[in-house]
Amino acid sequence: MSAPGPEDGFFRSRWAVPPQGVTELDPSGLAPGFRAAGVHCGLKGGGATDVGIIAVEDGQELSSAILLTRNASAAAPIRVCHERCNQGDLRAAVINSGNANAATGEQGFRDAVAMQETTASELGLEAGQVAVAETGVIGVPLPVGEVVAGIGEAAAALSADGGEGFNEGIMTTDQWPKRCCLRAGGVTISAQAKGAGMIEPGFATMLCFIQTDAVIPDPDAALRVAVGSSFERITVDGQMSTNDTVLLQATGASGEELPEGLLEAVLLQLALEIVIDGEGATRAGRAEVLAARDPEEAERVVRAIGNSPLVKTALYGRDPNWGRIAQAAGMALAGEQISELGPDRIDADDLAGPGVEAELSVRLDRGDASAHLYFSDLTEGYVQLNAEYTT
Amino acid sequence: MSAPGPEDGFFRSRWAVPPQGVTELDPSGLAPGFRAAGVHCGLKGGGATDVGIIAVEDGQELSSAILLTRNASAAAPIRVCHERCNQGDLRAAVINSGNANAATGEQGFRDAVAMQETTASELGLEAGQVAVAETGVIGVPLPVGEVVAGIGEAAAALSADGGEGFNEGIMTTDQWPKRCCLRAGGVTISAQAKGAGMIEPGFATMLCFIQTDAVIPDPDAALRVAVGSSFERITVDGQMSTNDTVLLQATGASGEELPEGLLEAVLLQLALEIVIDGEGATRAGRAEVLAARDPEEAERVVRAIGNSPLVKTALYGRDPNWGRIAQAAGMALAGEQISELGPDRIDADDLAGPGVEAELSVRLDRGDASAHLYFSDLTEGYVQLNAEYTT
Repeated sequence: MSAPGPEDGFFRSRWAVPPQGVTELDPSGLAPGFRAAGVHCGLKGGGATDVGIIAVEDGQELSSAILLTRNASAAAPIRVCHERCNQGDLRAAVINSGNANAATGEQGFRDAVAMQETTASELGLEAGQVAVAETGVIGVPLPVGEVVAGIGEAAAALSADGGEGFNEGIMTTDQWPKRCCLRAGGVTISAQAKGAGMIEPGFATMLCFIQTDAVIPDPDAALRVAVGSSFERITVDGQMSTNDTVLLQATGASGEELPEGLLEAVLLQLALEIVIDGEGATRAGRAEVLAARDPEEAERVVRAIGNSPLVKTALYGRDPNWGRIAQAAGMALAGEQISELGPDRIDADDLAGPGVEAELSVRLDRGDASAHLYFSDLTEGYVQLNAEYTT
Repeated sequence: MSAPGPEDGFFRSRWAVPPQGVTELDPSGLAPGFRAAGVHCGLKGGGATDVGIIAVEDGQELSSAILLTRNASAAAPIRVCHERCNQGDLRAAVINSGNANAATGEQGFRDAVAMQETTASELGLEAGQVAVAETGVIGVPLPVGEVVAGIGEAAAALSADGGEGFNEGIMTTDQWPKRCCLRAGGVTISAQAKGAGMIEPGFATMLCFIQTDAVIPDPDAALRVAVGSSFERITVDGQMSTNDTVLLQATGASGEELPEGLLEAVLLQLALEIVIDGEGATRAGRAEVLAARDPEEAERVVRAIGNSPLVKTALYGRDPNWGRIAQAAGMALAGEQISELGPDRIDADDLAGPGVEAELSVRLDRGDASAHLYFSDLTEGYVQLNAEYTT
C-alpha cells in the first residue's frame, strides 16, 4: 500500500477483512446524527485547515468511550480528557493540528480548558461533554486566541457534509487522509484517523474518531477490544506519543448493533494506513510469534522483532534474513535456554516477495501462546525526515 | 571521534579518563608473557587475516575470566565456552572472523569443539583451557577443514609481536583496529576489541581480549565491574549479539596490581570506539538520567532515550530537541504520574554543538538514582548498510 488509488476500496490490506455485506459510502461522509467542520485559524501555513469540531446533533441519544495515551509526558489535552471529561457522554470533540500543546506546562492546560469551554459554550453543552485532541509541534505555547476564534467559526459551520474538513483539521504530515464511511444492514459507521509515525518530528501522534448510529451496549469494552487488535498492534518506530486519542461516539438511533468484527476491521485498516504512511515507510510487515510459553512471552518476542532496526531494514531491502529474526527473538529471551531457532522454525521468505505487505513468523516450540504485530520498514527517508528537522 | 589520526592517543574520548602515570606503548604490542598470531585460512576474501590465537607462554601462571552474551540464540562458540571451558584457567583463545558459526545447529557445535581441541593439541593444553570466539555471517556452515588448517599455521606463528595479526583476525566491518598496549608503574596491559554495531549485517558482535602481567586477585569480579561500566553501557541499535565475548587473562608476573580505574578506562575507550565505529555512525552521545526513583527506573529511562530513533536522529542532525527526550522518558514511565519534563529539567544543548561527542541529561526529580548510556547516532548510512545487504 502506498497512497490509495481511485480504484482502491477502503479495505485494501489483506490483513483487514470486514464481515460480509458492507458497502462503502463517500468516505468523507458521517454516520447519521453527526455534524462536523474544519476551518483555518492560523496554526498551519498556507491557509490549511487546522481546527475542527465533531459533534452529535442536539436531541440524539449518545454513548461514548475514549482511550488516551499512557505516556507519562502526556500533553495538556490528554490531561483535560482525564480530569475534566465525562468519558461516557462525550457529545463533541474539538481538535487542532499544527501545535500539540505538549510540554507547555500549566498555561498549556489552561489553554486546552479554554478550548473545551469555548466549544461547550458554542454548542450548548456542559464542558465535560467535550473532548479535546491536539497534534503538531511540541513545547510551543498554543496561540489560544486564534484557536478560540477558529472554534467559533467551526461551530457555526457544522454540517453533515463536514467530515472532509474535520479530517483535514487533524492531518499534519499525513500523505493522505485516512477515513471511511460504511453501511452494513441498517447501520452506518464513519471514522477519521491521522498518524504517520512521527507526525511532527519529535512526537508521534495518532488520533482517531469513530461515529455510528449503531447500538453499542458497552462502548468502552467494544473500543478496548477493537483498539487492542488494531492500534495497539502496530509500530512505526516503537515510540509512544504524548497525544494519542481514540474516541468512539454512538447514537444507537438505528436500533441495530454493528455486525460482529466490523469495528475491529475498520480500526485495523486505519491502523495499517498509519503503518504504511509511516515516515519514510515503503512496506508493511506482519510478524507472528507462535508456540510461545505464555502471552507475555509471545508479546515480548514479537515486539523485539517488529522494533528491530535490522528486521525493519530487511523488510525494506526485501531480504529474507531469518538470522536477524533469530537474533531479535533471542535477545527478547536473553538468559533462557531455548532450542535453536533456525530456518525450519522461522519463515521469512515473504520478505523477499514483491508485495508491499509481507509476513514473517517464528515458532518457539515452548507452549501454545501467540502474538502478532504490524510494523513499517526503516528507510533512509525516516532518517532524513527526522534528522533534517531542527527545533 | 572518527578513525583515530596519527596524533591521537588511545584515550581520545573525553569520557574515558585513565589514572595518572599511564604511558602508551606500540598498540599492537602484547603484555609480557603473551604470544599471538593471525593468518589467512579462506573465510574472508582477498587474503585477509581470518583466524588467530592468543595464548599465554608455557610456564606462566595464569588466571582468567570470561563474559559471554546472554542471547538465547547464542552461537556455537558461546555454547562451547559455557559447556566445555574452565573459565578461570583459559590459557588460550582461538578466533575466526568471516563466519559466526551461529544458527548452525549441532554440526556448528561440533565444529567449534574441533577448533577448541585442535588448538589445545597444537599448544599442549587441555581442551577446557581454550576459549573459542567467532564472528561473521550467520546460518552458514563453518568450513571447518580450512579453519583447522589455519589453526595449525597460527599456532606455529605465535610470537610476542603477533598482536597486530591477531587483531586483524577478529575484524570484520570495523573501519579501524581497536586496541592498546599500556604501561603503568611496573605493569603492562594490552587489549584488542572488534565491533561496529552490526558487524556482519544480521548480527552485531563485540569481541574483546585483554592481557596483563598484573596481579588480579578476583579476575571475574574485576571483569564484571569493568564491563558493567563500559560494554554494558553502550548501544548502537539496541540489538544484543549472539556471539559477544570478553576474555581477561592475567599472569600476575609483575607482582603488582593494576592502578585503580585503568581496566575500566581501557574497556570504556574500546567500547566508545565501537560506538563511534557503529554502522553509519557519525557521532557518539552520552545520555544521563538523574534523580530517578531507583536504579531500575533510571536504567529503563536512559535506555529508552539512547535507543530512541528520534533521539538518535537528533544527535545526527545536531538538533537540541528536548521534546524527543521528554517523549522517550515519558514512554519508559508509561502509566505513571510525573511532574512535567520541560527544558528546565532536560539539557540537550550539547546535541547542537560542533563536537563528535555530545551529552544530554534529564532530571526526573523523583529520587536520587542515576544511570548513563553511550549511544551512536542513526544515519542514512546505517539504513543503507543494513538494507542493501542480502543473505
